Amino acid sequence: MDQRNDVTTPYTELEARFEELHQLGHAKAMLNWDEAVMMPRGGGSARGEALAGLSALAHRMLTAPDVGDLLDSADAVHARLDPWQQANLRAMRRIYSRAVALPEALVRARQIATARCQQIWRTARAENDWNAVEGPLAEVLALAREEAAALGDTLGLDPYDALLDTYEEGTRAADVANVFGELKGFLPGFIDRVIDRQRTPLPLPGPFSHEGQRALGENMMRTLGFDFAHGRLDVSHHPFCGGVPDDTRITTRYSDDYFLESFMAVLHETGHALYQQGLPAAWRRQPVGRSLGAALHESQSLFVEMQVSRSRAFMEFAASHLRNHLGGRQGDPAWTADNLHAHAIQVRRDYIRVDADELTYPLHVILRFELERALIAGALDVADIPEAWNERMTRYLGLSTNGNFKDGCMQDVHWFSGAFGYFPTYTLGALTAAQWFAAASAALPDIEAQIEAGDFAPILGWLRREIHGRGQLKTARELLTEVTGEPLSLRHFKAHLERRYLG
Amino acid sequence: MDQRNDVTTPYTELEARFEELHQLGHAKAMLNWDEAVMMPRGGGSARGEALAGLSALAHRMLTAPDVGDLLDSADAVHARLDPWQQANLRAMRRIYSRAVALPEALVRARQIATARCQQIWRTARAENDWNAVEGPLAEVLALAREEAAALGDTLGLDPYDALLDTYEEGTRAADVANVFGELKGFLPGFIDRVIDRQRTPLPLPGPFSHEGQRALGENMMRTLGFDFAHGRLDVSHHPFCGGVPDDTRITTRYSDDYFLESFMAVLHETGHALYQQGLPAAWRRQPVGRSLGAALHESQSLFVEMQVSRSRAFMEFAASHLRNHLGGRQGDPAWTADNLHAHAIQVRRDYIRVDADELTYPLHVILRFELERALIAGALDVADIPEAWNERMTRYLGLSTNGNFKDGCMQDVHWFSGAFGYFPTYTLGALTAAQWFAAASAALPDIEAQIEAGDFAPILGWLRREIHGRGQLKTARELLTEVTGEPLSLRHFKAHLERRYLG
Repeated sequence: MDQRNDVTTPYTELEARFEELHQLGHAKAMLNWDEAVMMPRGGGSARGEALAGLSALAHRMLTAPDVGDLLDSADAVHARLDPWQQANLRAMRRIYSRAVALPEALVRARQIATARCQQIWRTARAENDWNAVEGPLAEVLALAREEAAALGDTLGLDPYDALLDTYEEGTRAADVANVFGELKGFLPGFIDRVIDRQRTPLPLPGPFSHEGQRALGENMMRTLGFDFAHGRLDVSHHPFCGGVPDDTRITTRYSDDYFLESFMAVLHETGHALYQQGLPAAWRRQPVGRSLGAALHESQSLFVEMQVSRSRAFMEFAASHLRNHLGGRQGDPAWTADNLHAHAIQVRRDYIRVDADELTYPLHVILRFELERALIAGALDVADIPEAWNERMTRYLGLSTNGNFKDGCMQDVHWFSGAFGYFPTYTLGALTAAQWFAAASAALPDIEAQIEAGDFAPILGWLRREIHGRGQLKTARELLTEVTGEPLSLRHFKAHLERRYLG
Repeated sequence: MDQRNDVTTPYTELEARFEELHQLGHAKAMLNWDEAVMMPRGGGSARGEALAGLSALAHRMLTAPDVGDLLDSADAVHARLDPWQQANLRAMRRIYSRAVALPEALVRARQIATARCQQIWRTARAENDWNAVEGPLAEVLALAREEAAALGDTLGLDPYDALLDTYEEGTRAADVANVFGELKGFLPGFIDRVIDRQRTPLPLPGPFSHEGQRALGENMMRTLGFDFAHGRLDVSHHPFCGGVPDDTRITTRYSDDYFLESFMAVLHETGHALYQQGLPAAWRRQPVGRSLGAALHESQSLFVEMQVSRSRAFMEFAASHLRNHLGGRQGDPAWTADNLHAHAIQVRRDYIRVDADELTYPLHVILRFELERALIAGALDVADIPEAWNERMTRYLGLSTNGNFKDGCMQDVHWFSGAFGYFPTYTLGALTAAQWFAAASAALPDIEAQIEAGDFAPILGWLRREIHGRGQLKTARELLTEVTGEPLSLRHFKAHLERRYLG
């Protein structure tokens, strides 16, 4: 920064401002990781205040009176910037426009209401107590509606689209509804056929030591290309990927009698982590060096988990590692690649989204998308959620959640933490992952043999070159079209499911 | 804050500003803890940048153009504030005056130079390579001299006093030199007498499991009053106490074949932690709710470690816990309170300050105080440090460090991290701890029996009431005089040493 100050231009001044915002972001990322992984429970209230304080500070810096002028001045000399700088300026403008749309009082009220609601939700969920969360959630929804309206006004978007656009630039609810409509038509019958013909795998009796599961996870992470000099694996209540590109922290959780869920969580989060660790080194302190939207991020985790790791080829490679770390006997038919693979692709209609297989998962997402769209539009109120949930759960998955809030509308933290508009990105990510994998397979004709041999360097090289290392140089939609030759299409996901489940 | 905004006064506006600074402080405290305990090594550079960014931001907020006016306006209505608010305003003024004395460019240059020097020092120390650190340390010293001069100018203090005052308000080098002169006269002969008459304790053969040591440490922490709902015990290269009052994190390190050092480190850091956890709950977000200076903090750790835990009474209580957790046999004379106590009070002239007993420790500190005073005054340069170290080490402790930089002038991180003026506070803390303990013994006539019974509630209650819970309502010097009836005096420390080592 010191050298730059000699010839400060509006653009370089903006870089300096966004670098400071990046440092606040580093602090927030680490405080969030710590909260989930390390913090003693009594630290929660002070931590919540600290995070709210940092958010308010960042919001104030971002909306300082001169930032708009700096952006305008920098835009005026746009042609003199290189492509990375141009994309950076574009990303800055996007962040700025969304920030100035929201008054600081709303940002703060939202932070306080969501922190409170989440806290209440944690206890209430365990007790299946919908009444306890209804009020706090109504407050969160009111603020989310306010936020959506303010954002929509500024950006010229329908309120729900404005929220969706927060996570997934350029994606509109109408497009999502189209794709989801196709999935709703195609999946239920497909699931029936798969459940009819799938075989029940031989059981894998535990117990499995946490140490063994952890060593296995670290082994797989390393093999896939995770850099432990710049990251860690820990335990938390829900698996996640946090931290910063230079220090990427993923988590899982261990159970004594079932290892596959934890193992797949590690692989899933490793997909997120490889993306984060692969972001362009020179631009990590600037918006253009950040990851693209939520669907793109999810496409990286699902590329590793669904496309690579639940494949038959991967299980050929992984079976001996699983046996060695988890105490399986060689020659035991339960520990063959074949049986392990059968476990990895079991399909079952069930209540919980995070435990769902890749066939039923989209139906969980579609339900949530439809409800949250109605909630933001004002067509549905918080009090109506349980009934609407039960109705759709029965229709899409044949399961009633009547009175079962815990495994129904109280299972996910998203709404209770104010995240409306996020759910669709999970399924958009699954579709995108299938499309990436088709492109990768075209570029790497030996991909299956490489996976079976545990040689992931070519795949990681492709991801780094085509996706990770390009930050926000393009939008997610541009990147997908450029790399795969077409915009997002359902056909790769469908083809993938047919090959894997009916092939 | 929302309510306050309705009737914003200069004072309430200052509280809002300092609350934001407190949230940045929370982030920095946790990032520092994480760096020492959790961070993978490759994360260091990004972490250093983040911490530097947060520091620069805090400095800018603190020195914003209107802060001086707000302080003046608040001072004008001083009489209308309650005593806590008055003390808070005083503490704010102190922080502000020190911040405006330093230009942001110096703050940033210092942060970068010290981060670099510390990094080089870490490797160079292990390799006994003085040449590698000489240049970086000279750079750090030059900046420290600049800082000392700038602070001294603003505060009307001699440069070294200005640095000392950073850690210990109101304490001057001349006073320190007086007390240290007495110690230099008294300690060498005293040490000779103790070494002559002390007996060699029976050895305590290991190995000792880290799990056992950890369980023992947690047990003792709990017994002393550490609140695990608001804190943790972890492992780091050097033991320390970090975090925030609501989430206080201490560390130790474990060795297989010797447990006493780790055990005492836990007790020492618990002393710091009890202070931090006991700070006034209502004022934790404001300067007046912070701990008093470094010597006062050290007096709390040494109160627990030296006054309480290395006493014979404590070993009577702790012996069975030590045996149980560490696999000692009951009836084995090595595991009696008597023999454990003999271990805890062994005196030995040696090279390393952090491993020193309470008799030789002050001589280590005096050496450093004298050298750093000369370094800041310009009477000594970095190139002269090894020789000056060797000369004083030989004079005060009879040990040559000729060519042995590792165990000599490169052993401590302080100077390499730019902390000049800190060392004296260790010994001032030891003197203060003895004075507190004398006052506590007068207030709690059964103190020895209580320690022997493992009943620490009365002692903690006294510390909370007289010291912890009062934050910065008084200065450290005022508090000591008020609670103990006299200003800092060497006599309690001397009496303590005579009772313990020659009694």
